[in-house]
Amino acid sequence: MNNHNPELIPRGDEKLPLSRLALNLITVGTAHPLADVLSACARYGIRTISPWQEHYAGPGVSQAARLIRDHDISVNTVCRMTGFGAAITSAQWQAALDGARQIIDEAAELRAASITVVGGGIGADGDLTGARERIVTGVAEVLDHARAAGVTLALEALHPMVAAERGVINTVAQAVRYARRLGDGASVMIDAYNSWWDPELGESIKNASGLIGGYQVSDWRVPTDSLVFDRTIPGDGIIDLKSIRRQVELAGYQTTVEIEILSSRLSSQPLDELLPAVIAGFENHC
Amino acid sequence: MNNHNPELIPRGDEKLPLSRLALNLITVGTAHPLADVLSACARYGIRTISPWQEHYAGPGVSQAARLIRDHDISVNTVCRMTGFGAAITSAQWQAALDGARQIIDEAAELRAASITVVGGGIGADGDLTGARERIVTGVAEVLDHARAAGVTLALEALHPMVAAERGVINTVAQAVRYARRLGDGASVMIDAYNSWWDPELGESIKNASGLIGGYQVSDWRVPTDSLVFDRTIPGDGIIDLKSIRRQVELAGYQTTVEIEILSSRLSSQPLDELLPAVIAGFENHC
Repeated sequence: MNNHNPELIPRGDEKLPLSRLALNLITVGTAHPLADVLSACARYGIRTISPWQEHYAGPGVSQAARLIRDHDISVNTVCRMTGFGAAITSAQWQAALDGARQIIDEAAELRAASITVVGGGIGADGDLTGARERIVTGVAEVLDHARAAGVTLALEALHPMVAAERGVINTVAQAVRYARRLGDGASVMIDAYNSWWDPELGESIKNASGLIGGYQVSDWRVPTDSLVFDRTIPGDGIIDLKSIRRQVELAGYQTTVEIEILSSRLSSQPLDELLPAVIAGFENHC
Repeated sequence: MNNHNPELIPRGDEKLPLSRLALNLITVGTAHPLADVLSACARYGIRTISPWQEHYAGPGVSQAARLIRDHDISVNTVCRMTGFGAAITSAQWQAALDGARQIIDEAAELRAASITVVGGGIGADGDLTGARERIVTGVAEVLDHARAAGVTLALEALHPMVAAERGVINTVAQAVRYARRLGDGASVMIDAYNSWWDPELGESIKNASGLIGGYQVSDWRVPTDSLVFDRTIPGDGIIDLKSIRRQVELAGYQTTVEIEILSSRLSSQPLDELLPAVIAGFENHC
């Protein structure tokens, strides 16, 4: 037992209530028109979504924001702030800062709680330490802008297998250190798929108490055949998602559990097949 | 400057002497007859090798040991002790123990300094913590046998991308903890490819001082398209191998640098193309 609002924490044998589900839209790919995705979400009782920029690029952010509100849907996080790690020329650095300020403005218009910050991979200089420092420096530079916009910047540890190409924050402990360095307005996005293997995960989640800005889930297939696009629905893999969720809840984060499945196999399924399967995985295995 | 036998530590602009090279034979695949590989090694001045069991299964370990000595070649480590992580039935457990004792006897016959222990992935029960405990328990059970045979058991952290399928020791810090728990006869095998991304790597290598039983290298390609078989020759990827080697040396391990490249692309090359390229990568980029 615990004394952290235990009534909010379903025991292992209870279904997770659909009200806690956020659907990260990358789960359904980027081919569907946003309006189709939103009406499917509404039809299945999904009330919170997280778009990538690709999802609102078509209609534009203002029209997308209206569409989302018209469906009585909220936005959890916008994906993703990146490009700092590899920004080794001043032109690349300026482009990364411009991109960061743009996504902050978009997130504000979407009334998102946060932006997921992956920061980016290694630059052409091959400098891992430099890439990490550039991410902290870049986020620090746009943090005032984010605070003014009322949007939290949630630092996400990516799986080490995508460190070189996608993001050099690779453990929750590292994300927590950076978020503390950045201070007010920065938080940590924990992704079970990226971090389940981490021998320090339990300790790192405890240390993240008060700093957790989001919790994302998907499952690890055995065998796995892609470094990026082979995630699967909770219950179809080997991650003990219930245990990780409980640790996240005990650390004080007890709201949204976001399904984010990058899978070329699944995202090509029709929405009316994929969404019910996602919901069943969420309710029974998260 | 440092006071750890600085004369043994080439500066960044010096070639690493060929006398420090060990060639892990998985680099050349498993298709060549052992005798061909050994004569190619002798021809190129490679005096230390590390076989996988597949490399001596053909001739048998006694004949292989004779062949290796006939070429005046030494054995660094034998790969690999595994199978404990997934051993959830008593038959699986017994098979893992039998396999471990067998490879210890083989390593002794080959006069190897160590056996590389990866321990194995997750069992059908999906229990990550259980798999980790089984590895420590299994290694503890055969440690006396290894001590008596004069062979060190070197625990290797595998890359987290292969945790589920190959090995659930995934950081150097974790390998160091287990080696300390196991005590005399256990050591740590550091593999730069598996651990380069680790934000705690520098600290973990320092903490491994006195426990390092081997150091393996290969390089990380960008992009990488396989979780296992897309490693490359030092210098052809993004790992700062010179920096990691220097940290390993400062922690007291100043002997062999073992090239271990798992690459279906490279292992199919003729020995007379591959070995000179490997040696050049070793001398200039390790």
